[in-house]
Amino acid sequence: MDQVRIITLTTDFGTRDGYVGVMKGVILRINPQVQLVDLTHEIAPQDIWEAAFVLAASYRYFPPGTVHLVVVDPGVGGERKPIVVEAGDWLFVGPDNGVFGLVYRQERAHRVVEIANPRFLLPELSHTFHGRDLFAPVAGHLSLGVDIAQFGPELKGYQQIDFPEPRVGGKRIEAEIIHVDRFGNLITNLSLEFLGKLEGRVLKIVAGDWMISGLSRSYAEVKPGELLAIFDSSDLLEIAENLGNAKKRLGLDRGDTIEVIIGS
Amino acid sequence: MDQVRIITLTTDFGTRDGYVGVMKGVILRINPQVQLVDLTHEIAPQDIWEAAFVLAASYRYFPPGTVHLVVVDPGVGGERKPIVVEAGDWLFVGPDNGVFGLVYRQERAHRVVEIANPRFLLPELSHTFHGRDLFAPVAGHLSLGVDIAQFGPELKGYQQIDFPEPRVGGKRIEAEIIHVDRFGNLITNLSLEFLGKLEGRVLKIVAGDWMISGLSRSYAEVKPGELLAIFDSSDLLEIAENLGNAKKRLGLDRGDTIEVIIGS
Amino acid sequence: MDQVRIITLTTDFGTRDGYVGVMKGVILRINPQVQLVDLTHEIAPQDIWEAAFVLAASYRYFPPGTVHLVVVDPGVGGERKPIVVEAGDWLFVGPDNGVFGLVYRQERAHRVVEIANPRFLLPELSHTFHGRDLFAPVAGHLSLGVDIAQFGPELKGYQQIDFPEPRVGGKRIEAEIIHVDRFGNLITNLSLEFLGKLEGRVLKIVAGDWMISGLSRSYAEVKPGELLAIFDSSDLLEIAENLGNAKKRLGLDRGDTIEVIIGS
Repeated sequence: MDQVRIITLTTDFGTRDGYVGVMKGVILRINPQVQLVDLTHEIAPQDIWEAAFVLAASYRYFPPGTVHLVVVDPGVGGERKPIVVEAGDWLFVGPDNGVFGLVYRQERAHRVVEIANPRFLLPELSHTFHGRDLFAPVAGHLSLGVDIAQFGPELKGYQQIDFPEPRVGGKRIEAEIIHVDRFGNLITNLSLEFLGKLEGRVLKIVAGDWMISGLSRSYAEVKPGELLAIFDSSDLLEIAENLGNAKKRLGLDRGDTIEVIIGS
Repeated sequence: MDQVRIITLTTDFGTRDGYVGVMKGVILRINPQVQLVDLTHEIAPQDIWEAAFVLAASYRYFPPGTVHLVVVDPGVGGERKPIVVEAGDWLFVGPDNGVFGLVYRQERAHRVVEIANPRFLLPELSHTFHGRDLFAPVAGHLSLGVDIAQFGPELKGYQQIDFPEPRVGGKRIEAEIIHVDRFGNLITNLSLEFLGKLEGRVLKIVAGDWMISGLSRSYAEVKPGELLAIFDSSDLLEIAENLGNAKKRLGLDRGDTIEVIIGS
Repeated sequence: MDQVRIITLTTDFGTRDGYVGVMKGVILRINPQVQLVDLTHEIAPQDIWEAAFVLAASYRYFPPGTVHLVVVDPGVGGERKPIVVEAGDWLFVGPDNGVFGLVYRQERAHRVVEIANPRFLLPELSHTFHGRDLFAPVAGHLSLGVDIAQFGPELKGYQQIDFPEPRVGGKRIEAEIIHVDRFGNLITNLSLEFLGKLEGRVLKIVAGDWMISGLSRSYAEVKPGELLAIFDSSDLLEIAENLGNAKKRLGLDRGDTIEVIIGS
């Protein structure tokens, strides 16, 4: 064995039904040596954005050659195409429905291929569980080093995803909450990079009925129970409560907006 | 290392308490090379049927020789026997309380053995956590290739489980919901095989206050929010809502029945 | 490869956000051969006691040399020190905030080292996610056999955790519920060892509005729905309901006390 290959799994299957286990079984029949890593199976059912977000925050921390398998697939059995993507140093397998849209924003997609070669699929393809019959076997074969050109023809037009950019009006930036994590931290679409192109620094932030003065560098910088604004580990502006839950405190959720006021 | 062996785990332990981790630790002391795969730990406490169902839908996708470890064990410390089962190409370890009952329906059980040889158990056997002290070590030794005859005497009478067959009256079939998955899909006891023995095709389905016309081949075949009936990835009749939750929509749950009307 | 090394992970990250996956990616970049085992990621946010409890019940079942990584880190980015601990046959990595406090009660801590050597960290250290940038890489390097002295200077004073001892008054012992598990079992601070030093045996237990006579040896010893008291798989006194949920039945939770009456 010259190299251990890794497959990560991201689904909306939950962990109650054995669906994820079945996919792993299929993969292990093909490559019993593979390292399997769950990114998450708690994506809300059919929530493509959430899957795209979690994947985009995670993929690059894995070794080059890692296969990222994503099965959030509301259109299973319909028109959407199953694809393999080679982008940056990694491989991606899943439905062409936007789940890789945020990866395309961050990495050059060298090749995108439509999965069409039946040789790499289970012999009987169901209409309801392509995770098992199609995506898992393809991921297994990729992890053995099969070249992506083997799976089917190259695809030129593939599905993007809308990233809501912050709206700037003078000294006010309207930022949107694009993810709420387990701690109730509110993660927005305002990146450090975006802010760096504007003149001025963050003076204050209006979130729900609350006002936050300036930025913190760590949660521990404010007292327990106090709100803070911070650029998080993905360099996105996040509203948090130290040792608390900003979502509950502010009554805000994904899709809501906050206001960032900049100045000198 | 000539062969990587796999152990799957199915329990009602949840993932909060470290009980599953402890079982894995015990296994890894015996076989540090093993591949460990969680089927699920979210079986409702003491729900033997649910464990049997999830296992039966999953086991055959794993490579031959895989050890399927099931610890849903309401009778721990009591009279029920701990067993090893060799059925089809797989091995199974757990309590003899019916959790393997659906496997017996699908595979020939070559041998069933009562675990009695203390050599393969932890030195101190608790009365409350046989998952750790008995089943995990046995699974570990099985994954090293120990023959099942080593664990104890062969058992002739072992626990079956009642599978509720659909009831047929003329052109009406009463089917029972036997599992509800994470998506709220209602999975019934009516198999494609059972239906194939009857004359006629599915005309309509009455589920709660709703009527569904005929069968679909994929979720995407109906509009978002519409109900459909489909033979699922295990070839069981399933009532689903495309991009929705049939359980919530219909107010039906496990144990409830639906009516399937067949004709020509 | 002469030896497979194991890293266990215990966090309060949940399994929705990909944070755990990211940590595993970082580890696998350093040691692709490692065995990764989740103890739990469902520690309540910032609940140091719960992390300490789950770890203390689990660590010793893993092979010698296992690296136990704990990231429950309310003080991330603040003053608390990141440490590596060598105790008993195992290694521990995490913040010096008490999460290892119950390990110190059970094992001799041979060495405790403050993580200070930037060579073993990610190049950019965030202020919010030391799990990814600091603890995961250190665990990865430890699993490759790097000696703990390489990570930084030895630390003499490190954080303990208060273990609430049972209070004894004559023939009455006041025991505190220190953990409630998934089954609603109420686990107390009264150990078999502690009880062994007192004169007399357990006559009855008062828990909420209920009285339990004596101890059981297994759940199955009482009828379904009946309460029982038992020394659990960690040798701590536990109040349980056979096939039921003692927490719901008794309305008791962590921090509440029960009374144990001993005599001859």
